[in-house]
Amino acid sequence: MNDKVHVPTKAPIRIPTLNKGLGSYSREPGSADVARLDWNLLREDLSLPTAVLYEERLLHNLDWMQRFISAYGAKLAPHGKTTMAPRLFELQLQAGAWGITLATAHQTQVAYAHGVRRVLMANQLVGKQNMVAIGELLHDSDFDFYCLVDSAEQIDQLGKFYSQLNLRLNVLVELGVKGGRTGVRDDAQLQLVLTALSRWKPSIALSGLEIYEGVLHDEPSIRAFLFRAVEVTRQLASESRFDRSPILLSGAGSAWYDVVAEAFSSSVFGDAVEIVLRPGCYLTHDVGAYREAQNRIRENNPIARQMNSELLPALQVWAYVQSIPESEKAIVGMRRSTPVFPYLRSISDLAMQDRKWHQRIGQYQK
Amino acid sequence: MNDKVHVPTKAPIRIPTLNKGLGSYSREPGSADVARLDWNLLREDLSLPTAVLYEERLLHNLDWMQRFISAYGAKLAPHGKTTMAPRLFELQLQAGAWGITLATAHQTQVAYAHGVRRVLMANQLVGKQNMVAIGELLHDSDFDFYCLVDSAEQIDQLGKFYSQLNLRLNVLVELGVKGGRTGVRDDAQLQLVLTALSRWKPSIALSGLEIYEGVLHDEPSIRAFLFRAVEVTRQLASESRFDRSPILLSGAGSAWYDVVAEAFSSSVFGDAVEIVLRPGCYLTHDVGAYREAQNRIRENNPIARQMNSELLPALQVWAYVQSIPESEKAIVGMRRSTPVFPYLRSISDLAMQDRKWHQRIGQYQK
Repeated sequence: MNDKVHVPTKAPIRIPTLNKGLGSYSREPGSADVARLDWNLLREDLSLPTAVLYEERLLHNLDWMQRFISAYGAKLAPHGKTTMAPRLFELQLQAGAWGITLATAHQTQVAYAHGVRRVLMANQLVGKQNMVAIGELLHDSDFDFYCLVDSAEQIDQLGKFYSQLNLRLNVLVELGVKGGRTGVRDDAQLQLVLTALSRWKPSIALSGLEIYEGVLHDEPSIRAFLFRAVEVTRQLASESRFDRSPILLSGAGSAWYDVVAEAFSSSVFGDAVEIVLRPGCYLTHDVGAYREAQNRIRENNPIARQMNSELLPALQVWAYVQSIPESEKAIVGMRRSTPVFPYLRSISDLAMQDRKWHQRIGQYQK
Repeated sequence: MNDKVHVPTKAPIRIPTLNKGLGSYSREPGSADVARLDWNLLREDLSLPTAVLYEERLLHNLDWMQRFISAYGAKLAPHGKTTMAPRLFELQLQAGAWGITLATAHQTQVAYAHGVRRVLMANQLVGKQNMVAIGELLHDSDFDFYCLVDSAEQIDQLGKFYSQLNLRLNVLVELGVKGGRTGVRDDAQLQLVLTALSRWKPSIALSGLEIYEGVLHDEPSIRAFLFRAVEVTRQLASESRFDRSPILLSGAGSAWYDVVAEAFSSSVFGDAVEIVLRPGCYLTHDVGAYREAQNRIRENNPIARQMNSELLPALQVWAYVQSIPESEKAIVGMRRSTPVFPYLRSISDLAMQDRKWHQRIGQYQK
């Protein structure tokens, strides 16, 4: 399976100017036209706010993370919810990603519609319409799909549904921590999950184990959690619980991927385990939100040192200063918490940044 | 102008199932089909999360606010950014709204495309593409548009642009408070604004005065701000600064509309001033975010007492409980801060609510 790289196909798209708020365009440009339009922000060819992706930096990050993860012998399944941009999924798969991580059945439908053929859905699959939607995709034997389970009740729902359809659903048991989000907390819960899984063979196939360490915030707790994940994987493997070879072992958000890569890969599973890591924010990279992680990696990580480079901020948001009503206050015309830019830390940081750009725009226009 | 009610026209629409994440539908239902589909949430006919608008409650709120504002002799220009739903704009206009308030040139384009013909843009208009977009709409003599100004620099940009096109742009001077958002802070700033306006007659027409009191959080400060707005309006009127008769005086978000209605309407301007209030959240009404306002209105407001009714919560979000990993913790499959539902106060409140519904769904399915 490992050598199967699924690359989505390109299809031309029209840019709906009214939906996107580009400004005033009499017709909807096609994706092929955009380069010819020669949009220039300083000439105000587009309405602001506008998010700009810097291609060179984005490609640097694309390559950097793929090389970093590969250096540990691990696979990369970038979390796609960060961008939900099929064109970027395509770049990631072409660069060597094992698959795309997604959060919901709906996101999976969207990715599939754009050609993605391997998805790790890092959530429990629940709900009739969601099960139907995934079921339809599973009829495609080229579609490789994994989702999470953490309770007997949920497994019974999945088992009942997919066994009736004679479909096989691959699942990963999620381990969680007390006070965290989803995931099995202790051995008693784990046994209930395993018992439920045994009821639904072969419809529900246990393919591996999953964690999300990002609910914890200090390295010792995270390392303890990773150790537990490794131990449980070893235990379940020794009991021949897994229906996949190699066994999948997956973890890592964008803040601790270095620690997860190191801990999982040093657990000497050899070929028996396929390690799949899921950072999602690396393509654009937020120098604010991930400052601590970046410092740690730069200072301590041997692979990063060898690569002698790091992730670069590749996304910039341009917005208008619409008023400077007090000498130390600029009001910028954009939302503070737009889902597209979840990493902006404060509007005041941005305002200061924008005032600088404002001056540059002024210079350009003179 | 006051008797001119602009009602958008209805056009059939298709519901893009993949964009909306409805679940698994082989074809896109048209808006006319939806009622026939007889969707039932308890039967899980739709993928969750799903936002449900309760028609009867929404129509009650629609009528309630229109009657409340009218009782003060004021006009209602509901803030449309809250829903950005043209079908709801249509209901509001049919119920007697004076116009629709919007936040950006782009929102204005969208509303215009759906038939809205009177817009109060409660923001400074800045930026070339935004000026172009509004300029195109101004060629339609049936389109009545107002936006805010608060600095000479901004007015000069607008004046230069619209005078070249021989267009007339109606503006309201925004007053603001120290520490707040946009708006003229003091008399010195106001004089600069007035001087700039005098440079661009008749291209830039001063139609009135605007405030947003919601940046303040206690009634005495708000009343002082309202008093200042009334005084400045009186002063500018006595200097014959306004190019519109009646003069527009606009304020009020969804938390203080009762106080603004009362303060503005008791200022005895008579027919010389048209009071336009802009609450936006009343259609769906959030019982959490606006609890304090609702209590104040229920207890103190003579009009509300006379009406003997109040706003009702009309929006409910349904989501799946995907895991109950600890006995006191339910994990619900929805975002905490989706722009569509900005009023959910905490995921834990919701989780508790959902566990109750979860049980009801269970009962339904048995």
